Amino acid sequence: MRASDAFSELCGHFRQVTALSQVSGLLSWDQETMMPERGAELRSEQCAAVESAIHRLRSDPRIPDWAAAIDPKTLDPAGCVTLREAVRAHRRATRIPAALAEEIARVTALSQGIWARARAARRFADFAPSLGRIVALRREEADCIAEPGQSRYDALLEDYEPGMTTAVLSPLLTGMRPRLTALAERVAQSGHVAPRLEGRFPKEAQMELARRVAGTLGYDWSAGRLDLSVHPFSSGTGGDARITTRVVESDPLNCLYSTIHEVGHACYEQGIDPALALSPAGRWASMGVHESQSRLFENQIGRSRAFCEWLFPQMRAVFGDIGLTGPDALHAAVNRVETGFIRTESDEVHYNLHILLRFELEQALISGALAVEDVEEAWNAAFLRDFHRPVTDPADGVLQDVHWSVGLFGYFPTYSLGNILAGELFAALRAAVPTLDADLARGDASAALGWLRRNVHVHGSLKPPMTLVADATGHAPRSGALLDYLETKFAGLYGL
Amino acid sequence: MRASDAFSELCGHFRQVTALSQVSGLLSWDQETMMPERGAELRSEQCAAVESAIHRLRSDPRIPDWAAAIDPKTLDPAGCVTLREAVRAHRRATRIPAALAEEIARVTALSQGIWARARAARRFADFAPSLGRIVALRREEADCIAEPGQSRYDALLEDYEPGMTTAVLSPLLTGMRPRLTALAERVAQSGHVAPRLEGRFPKEAQMELARRVAGTLGYDWSAGRLDLSVHPFSSGTGGDARITTRVVESDPLNCLYSTIHEVGHACYEQGIDPALALSPAGRWASMGVHESQSRLFENQIGRSRAFCEWLFPQMRAVFGDIGLTGPDALHAAVNRVETGFIRTESDEVHYNLHILLRFELEQALISGALAVEDVEEAWNAAFLRDFHRPVTDPADGVLQDVHWSVGLFGYFPTYSLGNILAGELFAALRAAVPTLDADLARGDASAALGWLRRNVHVHGSLKPPMTLVADATGHAPRSGALLDYLETKFAGLYGL
Repeated sequence: MRASDAFSELCGHFRQVTALSQVSGLLSWDQETMMPERGAELRSEQCAAVESAIHRLRSDPRIPDWAAAIDPKTLDPAGCVTLREAVRAHRRATRIPAALAEEIARVTALSQGIWARARAARRFADFAPSLGRIVALRREEADCIAEPGQSRYDALLEDYEPGMTTAVLSPLLTGMRPRLTALAERVAQSGHVAPRLEGRFPKEAQMELARRVAGTLGYDWSAGRLDLSVHPFSSGTGGDARITTRVVESDPLNCLYSTIHEVGHACYEQGIDPALALSPAGRWASMGVHESQSRLFENQIGRSRAFCEWLFPQMRAVFGDIGLTGPDALHAAVNRVETGFIRTESDEVHYNLHILLRFELEQALISGALAVEDVEEAWNAAFLRDFHRPVTDPADGVLQDVHWSVGLFGYFPTYSLGNILAGELFAALRAAVPTLDADLARGDASAALGWLRRNVHVHGSLKPPMTLVADATGHAPRSGALLDYLETKFAGLYGL
Repeated sequence: MRASDAFSELCGHFRQVTALSQVSGLLSWDQETMMPERGAELRSEQCAAVESAIHRLRSDPRIPDWAAAIDPKTLDPAGCVTLREAVRAHRRATRIPAALAEEIARVTALSQGIWARARAARRFADFAPSLGRIVALRREEADCIAEPGQSRYDALLEDYEPGMTTAVLSPLLTGMRPRLTALAERVAQSGHVAPRLEGRFPKEAQMELARRVAGTLGYDWSAGRLDLSVHPFSSGTGGDARITTRVVESDPLNCLYSTIHEVGHACYEQGIDPALALSPAGRWASMGVHESQSRLFENQIGRSRAFCEWLFPQMRAVFGDIGLTGPDALHAAVNRVETGFIRTESDEVHYNLHILLRFELEQALISGALAVEDVEEAWNAAFLRDFHRPVTDPADGVLQDVHWSVGLFGYFPTYSLGNILAGELFAALRAAVPTLDADLARGDASAALGWLRRNVHVHGSLKPPMTLVADATGHAPRSGALLDYLETKFAGLYGL
């Protein structure tokens, strides 16, 4: 076979894999937003059929032959990513026995319901057997896919954060704990109480605000749409990057900041070079990079004093009087710090402490250092240590997140990595766009988005994730920028 | 291989084919209702990838081995349909060369745009080369799939109307022409002018009416939803059978009867025995049977005097005064006869004359008796003969329908067959439910739907389509019931 034919076969093959993965994403989007109640049974068969079709393609025995016929030196950077990813995906697909893949799919599909019922009943013991089965299966999977010398946890992490290892990630993340706990303590002891939005904020007004804010931040409506779902998420890529939000009538900040968060994810997808579409290089670089975009939009931009200058009159326009005196009060309200139990409701000061706790526990679960039956006790001990509050209800503790029930191990740390990268990228963006505050104060995010487009979005996964960020900032990612930003911001807000 | 293993492989295989076909339908639904404008490019790749996956499954070389290992005598009726359909689909998939299938997909994808532009420019010559290519490709395809002795047209018809032949269909359809043209003439000469709805009818009120009517006719909202699209359609099956409608503010009957039509299709899908889901027997019996359900709902029920008794106050409730004196005037307005050029806007008297014209022309195109460059002239001559009006604009004539541009040949006659079957089934339903008029007058369609469920819907494609209808009515389908119904109805309305 000629090398050029082999490469064109490989590209055609990957277009199909990618297109089917997008179909799989659309099925989930539809399920969460549009599907009628009785459609669930057929939907699970439809999803399974698409996954089978993807698996058949990924394990196509011609892939190693194509790869062998290609001379990597003749390929451009996108071509190199295609070759590398096809080989990697084929290796993973063929190393995991079909029976194991089916068992994982079956058990995680069931576990989600078992977890939800255990959380409602507030009994970890009801979920523990399922969790034990999932941990065992994911360990078995990790054993299949791990490269020589790679730990089980790192093998799982690879799917979300390509090229990352615990050896690098662990000090980066846990190194933040001292400054984070110190900051949380200083805020708690400041005696300062931030204002809070109170009242009822009608659904239509919240959605109108969400649409205005999304458009102002650069979300391209010709390449997306906004719908409602129980849990906000973003879905799709390129010309079709959709977002969802939710409405709680007593809390307009929930809808607002969920929307901004998803806009950050979606702007990333909308900004990837269209020439890379349907190729491996046209995919997001890593989950950490993805999360850096959503968190940068949500926090560094969306919760900034400058943006509140623009936001306050917008909120008055859609809601009328919101019971706050002006942009300063709004800035304080959207940055209100409270030591809660729930990660997804956490402020910026506490958020990463929640993640560190999960990261350490799940590493121990996968390595075997922590037994499943001991995880509730370990959770509660760690929470008391970091948050100084006892967990009395497992629904507020070990049962609060869906992730483990659907088999996600190695995913949690990408949330904190995303925050670290957001801190890094925002510092560089701020230096590159000196007019940033003035821009945001009048609702103009175009220079900020332009910088992110050029330095992050457009590259897709052409570069390894940490290289991508290092190229944008001038140095390897570290947590200092995030911690500096947090300490400065909350010192100002809480008079520290 | 044990016969039971072979059969279970075959069933598992078909579940995947069916689930992927449903995914393909959902991609189209999403494209017409939800997809952002810039999503089109990726969507075509997604559709192509799903079609490829379906084709790979259908042409799986293990299918003939499985089939050979199964003893049909051991199968229940649904199992027999599975065996028959798997073999038939495999034969068709493997007989059509991949290059031909791709060329058909490519040409028809392009032709739709060329047709739309030619229609806008009102020049058949702009579309003729594409049409020529499509006809040639479909003839080539027919040559691949035709069984010994089967004509090309019959080979194409088989996809929409399994088991039907032109030898049976042609006299059934064209035999209606004398009574239809005579009825149209008598109505035209009656001098009677039916009232017409005039004014502006707000979108939200039209949608509210559509929802009320759909629910009243038995549409299960827990297994479907109603959205807007440019052309109304129904999509999906079982627990997820969705419908769309459109709103023209000056013409509330457009939205209303489009909705009722699609409700007829969707109630059929919702009524198929769930035990047959994802198996070949769980599919609709034929396009003619499908259309019989939509037309029976739309016309025999929706345009009946009895239903207008219930409908009139409903319309008053959502629109206020509609400028008509009562149910009699509404009944006359919704059955207004006008000799128009456009099939989709046609009344019941003229509708089948439109179809007969297309049916005869497309048979001649596929057989080669009519050259593509002569089809406009042939259309205009036939229209003048049947409708006594000259076509002066090809957008009102040969360019009006999308079907041929997307390669649909053998599809048009199923519309008229559907009307004939609706006539047959309604006569039997009326005999079986003596309270029908009283029921409909108070907005109760449950007895009618129940009869259709038991006699048509639940059976899926367990029986050949004409047997299904014959079992429901007691005799082989013929056009008399439809023609009697039309003559009686319009004699009453137009004082003939």
